[in-house]
Amino acid sequence: MKNNKKVNAAILIIGNEILSGRTQDTNTSTLAKWLNSIGVKVNEVRTIPDIEKTIVDTLNVLRKTNTYVFTTGGIGPTHDDITAESVSKAFGLKYEIHNEAYKILEAYYKPGEFNEGRQKMVWMPKNAQLILNPTSGAPGFFVDNVFCLPGVPSILKSMIGGLKDKIVGGKPILSHTLNLRTVESEIANSLTKVQDQNRDVEIGSYPFFHAGKLGVSIVLRSEDQSKIDHCNSEILKFIKEKKIEIVDR
Amino acid sequence: MKNNKKVNAAILIIGNEILSGRTQDTNTSTLAKWLNSIGVKVNEVRTIPDIEKTIVDTLNVLRKTNTYVFTTGGIGPTHDDITAESVSKAFGLKYEIHNEAYKILEAYYKPGEFNEGRQKMVWMPKNAQLILNPTSGAPGFFVDNVFCLPGVPSILKSMIGGLKDKIVGGKPILSHTLNLRTVESEIANSLTKVQDQNRDVEIGSYPFFHAGKLGVSIVLRSEDQSKIDHCNSEILKFIKEKKIEIVDR
Repeated sequence: MKNNKKVNAAILIIGNEILSGRTQDTNTSTLAKWLNSIGVKVNEVRTIPDIEKTIVDTLNVLRKTNTYVFTTGGIGPTHDDITAESVSKAFGLKYEIHNEAYKILEAYYKPGEFNEGRQKMVWMPKNAQLILNPTSGAPGFFVDNVFCLPGVPSILKSMIGGLKDKIVGGKPILSHTLNLRTVESEIANSLTKVQDQNRDVEIGSYPFFHAGKLGVSIVLRSEDQSKIDHCNSEILKFIKEKKIEIVDR
Repeated sequence: MKNNKKVNAAILIIGNEILSGRTQDTNTSTLAKWLNSIGVKVNEVRTIPDIEKTIVDTLNVLRKTNTYVFTTGGIGPTHDDITAESVSKAFGLKYEIHNEAYKILEAYYKPGEFNEGRQKMVWMPKNAQLILNPTSGAPGFFVDNVFCLPGVPSILKSMIGGLKDKIVGGKPILSHTLNLRTVESEIANSLTKVQDQNRDVEIGSYPFFHAGKLGVSIVLRSEDQSKIDHCNSEILKFIKEKKIEIVDR
């Protein structure tokens, strides 16, 4: 089967503003949901500061241990935007003006507005390929398996469409959620038994507090729907025995 | 001076639910804000799955390269809660019943409710010290410089109070924010000059879109208020020249 290989990814969040707590990262969730939907499993996420050596070293670890790496942040016009230069160094590529990106931004801005600050955004690793930006002009780019996206969540979201033909996923990862009116300790042992007998389904247990009531979401994840269905029926058996209610949440 | 050393930390988010995008992590921001306020700089954040070997290996890197490590997630009663056992393995410590935690939970639950599932939560690395949990009973713990907290944000928040006497910070990291009605490219060159002349102040530039208008937040961070003040006055000079408005945001 064409679509049968394991495909995985790392997400690299670049930015002091996340590490200081000033900004709440939401790009991880956006990227992870999309990647899972196309059969790319996210292995790990790292958040690192705007320090060139740290970016270069981390990229050189992640790009060798993952099918794909997605970076967010650091591709704007200011001094703290050093992702493109760092990617160039990680790959040992020249950092230079990207002609196609130059033409895009020259056409995007009004005459006279494509100033020196904005021109910084067309400097990229040699032979980088562009990821178009339908929101604010300045493109992202990719080199080999490293895809560089902006940090602003709305712009990042708008650029995912342009990635779709560039990322080849594996089998989509399917999931099924059961929301139960119970507490984790009531079901822990029974759930452990189901997990032990079904090692290739990922079973997660997550307490929630919704509308004044406690509950537990059980999430079953696998590439194989029949395995999810089997686990689901095993769980339905023990919750029936325990008289636990299924809720909408 | 007593409080003059550099103190840093890593945050380790443990949980498949973050990597699948199902759950949006907010604990990083909570921990980072608090750590920065007490003079602990967050060097990096990693998010990893519920896989023992990954947790052990990652912990053994982070605990040697940071003053403190804070883990979130994986300390509940179910089969996917493997943080305590993984920490035991990372340190080569016995994984055993913690007597004090046992007594706390025995007293916390009604007679007969301290069942096998709940008893799992008192298994910890030998000689772990407890971090009390005012919300839901089950304590976190720490071993050496590794502090293990739950994943549920409201419970984690309630436990930070109990950490305060256990973490010794350095000089608090001070910050000052200027919100400007401009775009990054307008100020990029001037801001680069200020950064180049003030290498020991961290200057961040973050575009925002608020109430239908674009703007840029400039964030100045340093342990030294006089250096922040100096940068601030340099920036005020060029924004006056450029006739850029300061806004509330």
